[in-house]
Amino acid sequence: MPPHAKFRTIPGELAFIRSIRTQAAQAVRKSSSLRLGIGDDCAILRPAPKHEICVTTDFSLESRHFRRDLHPAQSAGHRCLARGLSDLAAMGADPLAVFLSLAMPAEIPAAWAQGFLSGLLSLARNHKIPLAGGDTSQSPASGSGAGLVLADIVALGQIPQDGALLRSGARPGDLLYVTGVLGGAAAELAMLLDRPARFRRLTKAAPGHPHLYPEPRLAVGRRLRGLASGAVDISDGLSTDLTHLCEESGVAAEIEAASLPIHPLARKAERQQLADSALELALHGGEDYELLFAAPPAARIPRRIAGTPIHRIGIVRRAGRKNRLLLRTLDDRALPLEPAGWEHFR
Amino acid sequence: MPPHAKFRTIPGELAFIRSIRTQAAQAVRKSSSLRLGIGDDCAILRPAPKHEICVTTDFSLESRHFRRDLHPAQSAGHRCLARGLSDLAAMGADPLAVFLSLAMPAEIPAAWAQGFLSGLLSLARNHKIPLAGGDTSQSPASGSGAGLVLADIVALGQIPQDGALLRSGARPGDLLYVTGVLGGAAAELAMLLDRPARFRRLTKAAPGHPHLYPEPRLAVGRRLRGLASGAVDISDGLSTDLTHLCEESGVAAEIEAASLPIHPLARKAERQQLADSALELALHGGEDYELLFAAPPAARIPRRIAGTPIHRIGIVRRAGRKNRLLLRTLDDRALPLEPAGWEHFR
Repeated sequence: MPPHAKFRTIPGELAFIRSIRTQAAQAVRKSSSLRLGIGDDCAILRPAPKHEICVTTDFSLESRHFRRDLHPAQSAGHRCLARGLSDLAAMGADPLAVFLSLAMPAEIPAAWAQGFLSGLLSLARNHKIPLAGGDTSQSPASGSGAGLVLADIVALGQIPQDGALLRSGARPGDLLYVTGVLGGAAAELAMLLDRPARFRRLTKAAPGHPHLYPEPRLAVGRRLRGLASGAVDISDGLSTDLTHLCEESGVAAEIEAASLPIHPLARKAERQQLADSALELALHGGEDYELLFAAPPAARIPRRIAGTPIHRIGIVRRAGRKNRLLLRTLDDRALPLEPAGWEHFR
Repeated sequence: MPPHAKFRTIPGELAFIRSIRTQAAQAVRKSSSLRLGIGDDCAILRPAPKHEICVTTDFSLESRHFRRDLHPAQSAGHRCLARGLSDLAAMGADPLAVFLSLAMPAEIPAAWAQGFLSGLLSLARNHKIPLAGGDTSQSPASGSGAGLVLADIVALGQIPQDGALLRSGARPGDLLYVTGVLGGAAAELAMLLDRPARFRRLTKAAPGHPHLYPEPRLAVGRRLRGLASGAVDISDGLSTDLTHLCEESGVAAEIEAASLPIHPLARKAERQQLADSALELALHGGEDYELLFAAPPAARIPRRIAGTPIHRIGIVRRAGRKNRLLLRTLDDRALPLEPAGWEHFR
């Protein structure tokens, strides 16, 4: 008997890693900045000279960020990566590579695991971003509960030195803008929760699905370098992310309800009584993955960048004693606006 | 009623993030390469000119990589970071920054969360590595099971262009070496499983605790640049990690049982009948976080680097038809050695 007979190998995990390695290499065949991908202790990236590195990590945890009984596997994988890329977009960074830590229960259907990976790699391919490494594990079961799918995406980008769009750069007098239209993701989620069966076949990314297949605004972010004074992505909802921008910049802000671009799905959700109001979804819905940015009044902000409409929604004010955020209502009253995030699956 | 009354804020999470931000800034006050830490969409790092970036991610999942009923919280945090730093050491990289994605159940004792963070930041401080960002979440409960502590560490390092130690660099005729002594981590784990109460007060990193407080070999890795032809860290066990090195290099290897440096705790575990043999622990135990490396016979490998002993354990061979690894036994037979990892908590 060999001395190691009591130890067991983990063949399933090794096979899964090999499969990821092959598919990652097929998804993005060439990357000038990736020197070494999956297979060593670390991946190696070579950033361009005189560039800085942007790094972000984002969890996608089953039953917190997605649900296996609601989301097509491809959507869960797409959204996992979109969260990371949206953070790069908010800095104005050019993506270099992404890394995925992924734990799955032993009993996960192979089709689900493959669907998750396909959804993620499909979005990576569209933006020519290599999946350069990560970690895999069997996810632990908790007591009598089954194991959950646990993912953590790491996105790295590069940016010319001192060129990043920061949350801390907004100044009183700057104008506030958002990309795209708001409230669509929360509206589609309400529809998904209402009638899950209608969404089961949406296994490919397509426009018009802001919750299932959000599109990170990488091209817009890059174009805003040198134009915007400060930026943040709208992941937690406009009211919360505008608060982040104002806090880090030490300023206040006033936005106009009449100027908010509202997603048609938010209006539809209001009509179907799946939400109190479309405005509410646009203000607090979260997960729109649009960009919110400030720019000096003299900056020439195009009405459309890379096909995405840009709307002016308000103005940056000096920070006062109270009411960091004001909302000018449709009947022209100025109401305090509190940051409010939506805890989707609690 | 304000329009967002149905939405809820997440004050506990924000307070925890603020606390991490403060403690991270206190742990490492200055870092020339960190331009922007916790608080924006991304952190920003500025690597040295003509350097490449090494990136690794490693899960530390409760009840898979550690157990809350066994490990002091400080040990769980220390080990979480040590996993990432050991990967940087294996590349010969200089650490730049680390990122932590951390999910905890709502009912986690505050002392546990703080202990985890203290253990992690204490190791970071010793190596002057800033915690530059990450993500936090409440960990999801699974069915009737309670939520688990879920951590993913991301470590970034830099290395002069083309200077990294790769798994693919070993050549036939090279000699094989390991740092430190082997089997200690598996032995201490066996003791921990046998009598957990004896280890409960070990809330500070100390030498002689290779399982609870492993020391990543960063200084040795750096010193091996230009000396070693290939390297890997011993996280899965010598037999498994030597297989990785050989596979990526397209070679075979022979190691000598008589030359393996064996940790005193492994001998103790054998005496206490907590393990079949100390040799088995050294060959397959895993989580030693020592470095295994190959170097040409002409390379002058010091007997000790940065206080850590270096032992020659075997030789790299040309890959043949079978038996990637051979073990020369104490009675001078050459036995095939299969890679065998130890699945600790299954």
